[in-house]
Amino acid sequence: MLADALGFEHVQIVEHHFTPYGGYSPDPVTFLAAVAARTREIRVVTGAVVPAFVHPLKLAGKLAMLDNLSHGRLDAGFGRAFLPDEFAAFQVPLSESRRRFAEGVEICRKLWSETEVSWHGDWVSFGPVTLLPRTVQRPHPPIFVAATTSPESCAAAGRAGHHLQVVPTVTSREGLQEMLAAYREARRAAGHPGEGRIQLKYTCYLDEDRSRALERARRFEHNYIAKMTGAVAAWGGVRSDDYPGYEQLVEKVRRYDFEASLAGNKVLAGTPAEVTEQIATVREWFGAGLSVCLQFNPGCMPYEDAERAVRLFAAEVAPAFPATE
Amino acid sequence: MLADALGFEHVQIVEHHFTPYGGYSPDPVTFLAAVAARTREIRVVTGAVVPAFVHPLKLAGKLAMLDNLSHGRLDAGFGRAFLPDEFAAFQVPLSESRRRFAEGVEICRKLWSETEVSWHGDWVSFGPVTLLPRTVQRPHPPIFVAATTSPESCAAAGRAGHHLQVVPTVTSREGLQEMLAAYREARRAAGHPGEGRIQLKYTCYLDEDRSRALERARRFEHNYIAKMTGAVAAWGGVRSDDYPGYEQLVEKVRRYDFEASLAGNKVLAGTPAEVTEQIATVREWFGAGLSVCLQFNPGCMPYEDAERAVRLFAAEVAPAFPATE
Ligand SMILES: [Ca+2]
Ligand SMILES: [Ca+2]
Ligand SMILES: [Ca+2]
Ligand SMILES: [Ca+2]
Ligand SMILES: [Ca+2]
Ligand SMILES: [Ca+2]
Repeated sequence: MLADALGFEHVQIVEHHFTPYGGYSPDPVTFLAAVAARTREIRVVTGAVVPAFVHPLKLAGKLAMLDNLSHGRLDAGFGRAFLPDEFAAFQVPLSESRRRFAEGVEICRKLWSETEVSWHGDWVSFGPVTLLPRTVQRPHPPIFVAATTSPESCAAAGRAGHHLQVVPTVTSREGLQEMLAAYREARRAAGHPGEGRIQLKYTCYLDEDRSRALERARRFEHNYIAKMTGAVAAWGGVRSDDYPGYEQLVEKVRRYDFEASLAGNKVLAGTPAEVTEQIATVREWFGAGLSVCLQFNPGCMPYEDAERAVRLFAAEVAPAFPATE
Repeated sequence: MLADALGFEHVQIVEHHFTPYGGYSPDPVTFLAAVAARTREIRVVTGAVVPAFVHPLKLAGKLAMLDNLSHGRLDAGFGRAFLPDEFAAFQVPLSESRRRFAEGVEICRKLWSETEVSWHGDWVSFGPVTLLPRTVQRPHPPIFVAATTSPESCAAAGRAGHHLQVVPTVTSREGLQEMLAAYREARRAAGHPGEGRIQLKYTCYLDEDRSRALERARRFEHNYIAKMTGAVAAWGGVRSDDYPGYEQLVEKVRRYDFEASLAGNKVLAGTPAEVTEQIATVREWFGAGLSVCLQFNPGCMPYEDAERAVRLFAAEVAPAFPATE
């Protein structure tokens, strides 16, 4: 695959159901297994799988298969999901989202790192069982938790020793700095080794020609937001204590302003020199140790345009950031 | 992949949990996505996935992704599963197995072939939703039903217009002929077009040298049966109306006799000429239109031995059966 040959660090895919928003991807593991089979170096990242919609035994099992098929290249990212339509279809109450998420992640961790595992929780109860296959990465593949806006969720991830996936689009610079500080402090206080890995996800529009890059960015960002508007519409009529503030999501998406996002480095767009500068800025704001994850084909951009941008990034932007790309 | 290059018709994998029996495969779709990514012609066959252990929305979604990743090469085989330990871990009563299976298969069929699907059944309720991605094969990928010993199950599959997967090891020649007759007759009576596809699964031990083939067959068949004994042990203490006769499975497995199986063409073993003769015989018994599915690496056979047998089969057995291999 192209991204592997060009030396990118990882490839990542989300889980979403019944909506063009999210890339036709009801099962990230299925897609990443195909990617793993055609690559050698690049890490395969779920960004994220949703424990609430699948039995944890099944989820742990298929992620373990993916870790084997990729010879230990899996970063396992878990998310709570946030679209009411998905929860309705799977008949899972939004109010159980937080606890089901925590239970699912912890069951996977245990099944990967221990044998003869028993679990008697609120939703599932089993054991003792030993998961097969065993994971290649020991004691288990790196676990990432997807956080959106809450410093408390980030602190919880840090306390548990997990890594972090964040989408900077939906929060302010100060908000995100607060989230990352909460994560790093909780992680340190709990005594976990290392800094913890942080993946920041951005959409990226790159072209040698500035006006072409921005024109494309405006057009496809608009498509992307239009799809997101459809996907989040149900928040217009729903409230959940597990999702404080999400009832304002429809309004937030409606107010989305591309120029302000670009100025705030929430979307990366422009020439290689400009995007290089933007990445340098977000690393200055949020820490040089983090990984910047780029989505090159949002809003149904034609594949050739995305491919050209990926090649350009590898040739002219990545060399400026040798450690993390 | 080797099997693709050698012109085999399909590659198939089962779903089993927590036991070396079944090949460390808690999620067939994950494995087959990797196979699809490295092959061009060969069909990818779930043999089978188990609807009882996964939400049908999730199962339909990942099988649709696999049909896309393989550019329309998916044969979707569904099984009821039969190991009490698996049902216990997933907290699904054996007594619900038959109805959950039927509901899961029908939901997949509807989600693949229709849009705006609603379902209000005994276990799941949703809709209207439109599954994404849409399947490449229209109206849907071929649906296979795994049948074990009951002519009634085969007749049900025929009535529904599904295709059939059978493991001849566990039934007599006459029993299997009765099953296939029930399938074909029900299918015809219901007015479904075509004959219906039938996949028969055999273990296969092949060597230019007869005694080496048989020695290997005895040894690995013994390993395979030993693992199966562990996997089915729970049937010693369980009875279910959904699984009539399964309480005798422990005893049946204990009485397994390799020489009798070989003589009855339930296991294929010997020189290319001998295995060719065995396949000709089972096609004579059961119908020339069926597909013979061979497992070349049962009982943890070393990969090199299995690879040698696969190559030998392609070179010296397959040419005798040009239509179906
Ligand atoms: Ca690299
Ligand atoms: Ca998944
Ligand atoms: Ca989330
Ligand atoms: Ca062929
Ligand atoms: Ca599966
Ligand atoms: Ca079955």
